[in-house]
Amino acid sequence: MSYFALSEATAAAHLATVPVIHRILGGTSADWTVREVGDGNLNLVFLVTGPDGGVAAKQALPYVRMIGESWPLPLSRAYYERLALADQGRLASARVPALLHHDDDMALTVMALLTPHRALRGALIEGLRYPLLADHLAEFLANTLFYTSDLAVPAAQKKKRIAAYLGNTAMCRITEDLIFDEPYFDAPMNWHTAGLEDVVAAFKADTPLRLAVQDLKARFLAAPEALLHGDLHTGSIMVTDQDTKVIDPEFAFYGPIGFDVGMILANFWLAAFAEPGQRPGVPSDGWLLLQAARLWNGFADRFGSHWRNLDPLAEGGALHAIGRHAPALRETAIAARIDMIWRDALGFAGCEIIRRILGLAHVADLESIADVEQREACERRALSFARALLLMPDHFPEIAAVHRAIAPALLPA
Amino acid sequence: MSYFALSEATAAAHLATVPVIHRILGGTSADWTVREVGDGNLNLVFLVTGPDGGVAAKQALPYVRMIGESWPLPLSRAYYERLALADQGRLASARVPALLHHDDDMALTVMALLTPHRALRGALIEGLRYPLLADHLAEFLANTLFYTSDLAVPAAQKKKRIAAYLGNTAMCRITEDLIFDEPYFDAPMNWHTAGLEDVVAAFKADTPLRLAVQDLKARFLAAPEALLHGDLHTGSIMVTDQDTKVIDPEFAFYGPIGFDVGMILANFWLAAFAEPGQRPGVPSDGWLLLQAARLWNGFADRFGSHWRNLDPLAEGGALHAIGRHAPALRETAIAARIDMIWRDALGFAGCEIIRRILGLAHVADLESIADVEQREACERRALSFARALLLMPDHFPEIAAVHRAIAPALLPA
Repeated sequence: MSYFALSEATAAAHLATVPVIHRILGGTSADWTVREVGDGNLNLVFLVTGPDGGVAAKQALPYVRMIGESWPLPLSRAYYERLALADQGRLASARVPALLHHDDDMALTVMALLTPHRALRGALIEGLRYPLLADHLAEFLANTLFYTSDLAVPAAQKKKRIAAYLGNTAMCRITEDLIFDEPYFDAPMNWHTAGLEDVVAAFKADTPLRLAVQDLKARFLAAPEALLHGDLHTGSIMVTDQDTKVIDPEFAFYGPIGFDVGMILANFWLAAFAEPGQRPGVPSDGWLLLQAARLWNGFADRFGSHWRNLDPLAEGGALHAIGRHAPALRETAIAARIDMIWRDALGFAGCEIIRRILGLAHVADLESIADVEQREACERRALSFARALLLMPDHFPEIAAVHRAIAPALLPA
Repeated sequence: MSYFALSEATAAAHLATVPVIHRILGGTSADWTVREVGDGNLNLVFLVTGPDGGVAAKQALPYVRMIGESWPLPLSRAYYERLALADQGRLASARVPALLHHDDDMALTVMALLTPHRALRGALIEGLRYPLLADHLAEFLANTLFYTSDLAVPAAQKKKRIAAYLGNTAMCRITEDLIFDEPYFDAPMNWHTAGLEDVVAAFKADTPLRLAVQDLKARFLAAPEALLHGDLHTGSIMVTDQDTKVIDPEFAFYGPIGFDVGMILANFWLAAFAEPGQRPGVPSDGWLLLQAARLWNGFADRFGSHWRNLDPLAEGGALHAIGRHAPALRETAIAARIDMIWRDALGFAGCEIIRRILGLAHVADLESIADVEQREACERRALSFARALLLMPDHFPEIAAVHRAIAPALLPA
């Protein structure tokens, strides 16, 4: 079947040809209701419900939806997304939607409907709290990152998986440009809150900052440590009180472990910096920073446990050898590796915060602060913090040190 | 044609079917002489000469020649070797033999005969000097490493080249095992000069050393910065007074730039450490260290020049963007990148020196020192220096600092 973009009018009839979808929805396609809800930047998303159940059908468009046909983007991203959903599903099955059907020609991926889930970002802005969220995200990160790394997977096998994702270059290019380049020069699509011109100019002239970002870009380009989600912000996470699902891995590729970790931490920190602007005068309950700490510590604990649980006699990944030959060194090696991930994560988090305030794609946490002066104040604090992450990582040997540095910025305005 | 191993008796008739070989050699295959000279560890090498000229025909064997059929090794390495010869030939045509013919089924690569070249290692042991050697090697390194990196090649195109070499896993595995693992535990194939037992035991128990090596192994596994030769020791270099050719890139893959640089520096340093044992009582003329310095400085200069010469308006590699958008930052970025390569090179050089003394594959520079006590003394100094490279890179901000540290070890015994 050659590609055509589905619509609310045509989606039901198209999906009715797939037996598994029929079974889940029940009835006939005439009984199904279809709602297009793609509020993201890139794709069509149809929620389809029938008498017995529902599915979510995501279809890539051959261009960037938020910009239009002037910015083409290959449909192949749907292929990489379903590849990643399958890989993540094997490693963290409870943390991603079940993949029900895919059609690469149609750039179509059909998943279990997540209900009554909602996107985490909006929920955090409303001040909602989720007791299992941090643990669930730690589980997703540790499982997908450890078990696709050189610790768990023999090198020859891992290189095949690296190769499987190497073609997802158009999506990586978006990150290269939007995160690592454009915020630091007068890119035409940059925008920012009025009043931040001095920071924009200062960052542009900040040689150490730009070199630190350049080094992280080099790592993003050429450090295939593990299979990354690649776009792990709070808009890619669906939550209920009891469940957490990570969606939208269309940016997936093999990259530096600290990138996924740093991006999700940055989005919790962005939410925390936005809080005083969202609820002026109300003291923070500290929940967001507590979740960031639980997420990081939970990730680090699980990453170490996965390592300890490797069969000491099995071949394992190429970096498992030290544990096989020198069991006494294993704990030190674990601590050293986790520290390297932490250092990387700090840098990538700094990049993510900066680009969400000065680049093209902003976050609603900050944008929804109606009072411009409040917003500017929150953003200014976040930018200053991001610069410190990039330039003074030694000041933040652990996440508690980060949070001590943030705390004063979170006092009510 | 399905694979069979050629012999001195069958090679001429086999090669006679290739028109380009016929043209070069002249006469008929009955007029050709064939000599098998493969003194390396892995392959058959036939030198074939006729009335008008000669060629070198290299054929992979399905096992490691120095060990035997008990250590199988895939023939595909011949495919990666001819791929690399072609890539290197485009970027540094004067520094590699011309590729005349290849037959992937036969794992056969036919190259221009290098005559009157000889292998550099043996020449250095004899004390011969080559005026253009260091510049030639700097040219080879700078051209092949810069022009396959994210500075010169757009990311999507570079990832295709990474993928092209990702299957060369069996050769990478040899390096992973022999350089990064086995020297640090009681691997059955390790051997060393009697008297070094204390160093073997100390290295095995040296946690910081082993963690430093582990980090470099992680970079070797997952840092596809540029197309590496992968085995750039002085046995892979053929020289005359006027010419230098780099051969045998069968370990080629995309890896960290500092690996190639560090391995060749290490082999110059190994030769320098061997000198007092080779010529007891004769003061060193300092030529070997001077060449190492010329090689590194020549590489760094050329790497920077290649960067400066990039078209400022062209797309270029993903890491070229900073130079496009912030020309004032370019020199600082160049210096920072060269410093990162230098740091990596020091570490990889340390690994190479250690494995050449305590691992499976030793170097003739040291092995040919007949006096065991002299040899042990040279090796002990080299090992101590290698450990310093790995653990105290900050002490060696430039190659002059390295050579100041080495100099006392090179005084006549």
